Amino acid sequence: MMNLPLFGSQLIGFKTSRDNEEFIYGVDPTTGKELQPGFAIASHGEVDRAVLRAEGAFPVYSRMSGAMRGRFMRRIAEELEALGDQLIARVMQETGLPEARIVGERGRTCAQLRMFAEVAEEGSWVDARIDLAQPDRLPLPKPDIRRMLVALGPVAVFGASNFPLAFSVAGGDTASALAAGCPVVVKAHPSHPGTSELVGRAIVKAAVGEGMPDGVFSLVHGGADVGEWLVSHRGVKAVGFTGSLKAGRALADLAAQRAEPIPVFSEMGSVNPVVVLPGAMGDLEALASGYSASLLMGVGQFCTNPGVLIGVESEAFDQLVGKIAEKVAAAEPGIMLNQGICNGYLQGVSERGKHEAVEVKGMAVAAPGMASGVVFSTSGQDFMVDSSLQAELFGPAALVVRCSSAEELIEVVRDLEGQLTGTILMGDGDEELAGTVASALRDRVGRVIFNGYPTGVEVCDAMQHGGPYPATTDGRFTSVGRAAILRWARPVAWQGAPDWALPEELRDGNTRGIWRRVDAVLGRE
Amino acid sequence: MMNLPLFGSQLIGFKTSRDNEEFIYGVDPTTGKELQPGFAIASHGEVDRAVLRAEGAFPVYSRMSGAMRGRFMRRIAEELEALGDQLIARVMQETGLPEARIVGERGRTCAQLRMFAEVAEEGSWVDARIDLAQPDRLPLPKPDIRRMLVALGPVAVFGASNFPLAFSVAGGDTASALAAGCPVVVKAHPSHPGTSELVGRAIVKAAVGEGMPDGVFSLVHGGADVGEWLVSHRGVKAVGFTGSLKAGRALADLAAQRAEPIPVFSEMGSVNPVVVLPGAMGDLEALASGYSASLLMGVGQFCTNPGVLIGVESEAFDQLVGKIAEKVAAAEPGIMLNQGICNGYLQGVSERGKHEAVEVKGMAVAAPGMASGVVFSTSGQDFMVDSSLQAELFGPAALVVRCSSAEELIEVVRDLEGQLTGTILMGDGDEELAGTVASALRDRVGRVIFNGYPTGVEVCDAMQHGGPYPATTDGRFTSVGRAAILRWARPVAWQGAPDWALPEELRDGNTRGIWRRVDAVLGRE
Repeated sequence: MMNLPLFGSQLIGFKTSRDNEEFIYGVDPTTGKELQPGFAIASHGEVDRAVLRAEGAFPVYSRMSGAMRGRFMRRIAEELEALGDQLIARVMQETGLPEARIVGERGRTCAQLRMFAEVAEEGSWVDARIDLAQPDRLPLPKPDIRRMLVALGPVAVFGASNFPLAFSVAGGDTASALAAGCPVVVKAHPSHPGTSELVGRAIVKAAVGEGMPDGVFSLVHGGADVGEWLVSHRGVKAVGFTGSLKAGRALADLAAQRAEPIPVFSEMGSVNPVVVLPGAMGDLEALASGYSASLLMGVGQFCTNPGVLIGVESEAFDQLVGKIAEKVAAAEPGIMLNQGICNGYLQGVSERGKHEAVEVKGMAVAAPGMASGVVFSTSGQDFMVDSSLQAELFGPAALVVRCSSAEELIEVVRDLEGQLTGTILMGDGDEELAGTVASALRDRVGRVIFNGYPTGVEVCDAMQHGGPYPATTDGRFTSVGRAAILRWARPVAWQGAPDWALPEELRDGNTRGIWRRVDAVLGRE
Repeated sequence: MMNLPLFGSQLIGFKTSRDNEEFIYGVDPTTGKELQPGFAIASHGEVDRAVLRAEGAFPVYSRMSGAMRGRFMRRIAEELEALGDQLIARVMQETGLPEARIVGERGRTCAQLRMFAEVAEEGSWVDARIDLAQPDRLPLPKPDIRRMLVALGPVAVFGASNFPLAFSVAGGDTASALAAGCPVVVKAHPSHPGTSELVGRAIVKAAVGEGMPDGVFSLVHGGADVGEWLVSHRGVKAVGFTGSLKAGRALADLAAQRAEPIPVFSEMGSVNPVVVLPGAMGDLEALASGYSASLLMGVGQFCTNPGVLIGVESEAFDQLVGKIAEKVAAAEPGIMLNQGICNGYLQGVSERGKHEAVEVKGMAVAAPGMASGVVFSTSGQDFMVDSSLQAELFGPAALVVRCSSAEELIEVVRDLEGQLTGTILMGDGDEELAGTVASALRDRVGRVIFNGYPTGVEVCDAMQHGGPYPATTDGRFTSVGRAAILRWARPVAWQGAPDWALPEELRDGNTRGIWRRVDAVLGRE
């Protein structure tokens, strides 16, 4: 297949646009060299036009049937697959990720698009509720009231550095927003602009091919300014973001200060504590392998990376930590996604290593642009006293928390900040303590894992990827799995409406065949 | 029945508390006289203790079964009813509302408590989702993942001036939060402190009687300071408020600036536009009666008061407006809830009457503490140019918007700020225009009403009481109806959990008999 030449422009609706001659370049993290072409940084006017197009597309796109939206999204998946090796090669160049990972991530991205297509096609996600009229009710007649979720409006999505496909231009945020009926304006992550353009053009091709309204999708390039213009634009009604606490919080603050505040779904990572209980320490070798594999996976660049390991001091726990430190030290250094992430990691590691309450258990030397794992250790008391030890260190860094007793371990867990996940490694005889720890974790995390590891987030109906702040800005929603569509909708009720004025989902006869609550009883008649 | 003497103290958990000797007094709006006793203003320490108690109660209360929470809430309703005439008399004294209205509102309040009790008892509201394990899946096994909604944590509720029972101490916010498993700290509205104490004591009595944990409910008195302490307290995890845009926005801003931002559900009212189409103008007398009755109901002190009437200029529309003005002018003035509201209304009316683009169609003179209705009129163009004309004037004031054409009417509707409701009055031949207006309203309001009036909010499964900002701070939720419980919960997933570590709702066998999605298919097996 012939490679598409890259434009290096914004995609504003169905057209390219280039106001500025100031550029962003992708960088090959394995060489530190700039990649061609440059990608023009969006002007304020371009951001404005992208949102205005999205506003124009909204009344049309949000009223399209689930079947039409589903067809569009399935087509996006096909167009992504049709990009073939060019896409894989460009992602590798811009991120340094290995081919197998990227092929897998493309598979996941397309599967997400098809899953949300199915959610839109099936249609029950709108939570339709119908209260039938009771004209003879006393003292007053009861009117007919029908309610369902409708799309919020144009959504701004920020591409993530660590998932160039699955959480970027056509990732889970875009897919779930499009399924809900929201046009999307994506700000490409500056560290993979070429990947973003290729994926963005696949979406535009699908949109044109399936007769979607111009403006249903736009892609802009730029840094913090461009992001702020997007989030501040009065036409934008919600924001999806995956990245650092600092940036995610800044966007949430900006959105809260608008004349009309809007919801921001920032997924900002976690230290994902793993609590190892005494009964789990039968096969220390397996335990050490399992934990260090999860820690080192993808050079630790996952939001579910298990950065904190909590246990009660014992000979076995010491041995376990020793084995983990050995495995981490023996692992090959890996290329990080970009120099900024690598520098941030190395600086964080260096600072934590100087912390007086922290002991360094083992670290390999990093080559330029590369990093290796490190294991720190501290006491339960010190961990609770200094909340900076709970800060995420994005990369393969573990902090072992040695508690003096089971009681202190419970205290440490109760003292945790909000987390995406919390894991319990347990064995026979741990039931009582595990029950207490699980109950404490339930109030601090979005997902409680038993005898597993937090990396590898299943994309399914029951997934919860989102936890109390600072894991996310809004732990009431998930950014992974079918329920992610609920972020982009709000309920509207119709009272006394003639059948023709109702959305199909609420009409008599239920021609869509969706699940509905009629007089508070679920059914699909 | 003997009257309970009022304490005039905070209710902190199961105990009274009085740190301060500074007092709030209820005022009889019919006489302007202070009512006894004084109610001590809460100290910062009292607010802190109330939240700490709620935090202490949370792990116990949030894990109680729906059946236990339901019993507690049904008991609250019984204790409210047991207060008998003393409650009715005190509400009348503090609000000037007529007896029939208060008796009706008590009925609604108890019905809400019983409805949310049923929601908790039935249990399907938790949106349980189960993805079964697939140990043989390739390339990786699929783990067992189960997800449901759990309570957010302690909730702060602000009593509303205009619904001393149904949106105050034991109102919809408290009832839905208790049903979800959240302890509640209420700040009493300063204009009905005695009512608040009576209701608060009924809740405490029910809590003690049903074996609820101390701290499941507290009641504090005070003004803006006390409210700010509550919303700023790190133990509070969500806020329910009904009142003005200014106060509601201030609370939302405060919550957004916290170290851990929390959701605020401020329901801040609306002008609830009513669009009258040509075909509706057959029986002008009935139309004028219907509209003016809705406008004048409760001296216009409802968040769904229809403050704006939009139509296309015609002889019939002029006649309609004339008839409305006559009816409004002929109506008796009514006592407003308190002097502050009355002054605000009179000042707003006076300012709007001086607006150069506004004509006054008729207003009666108000006696002290009382107000009567007023009808203003302006053009569609002027209405769109000056957004101050969209501001709510809390009380029985109507603004007629005369559009020069159907096209301008559509423009006016599209230009509306977010609203709780939007109403279409239509007749034969209006279908096309009504469809366009309904579609425009869908994007601006929470509830679209056909040939009815917005006052009288049905408490049911399909109700949506909440709309885009500035109607509410979070139009994705409702404060009335069964779905109001969803404001106080977030999802948690359990991965690979042994059955005993799961909440009953997610265990094998579905002993609760609730609706669950198993591998994305709904059922209750």
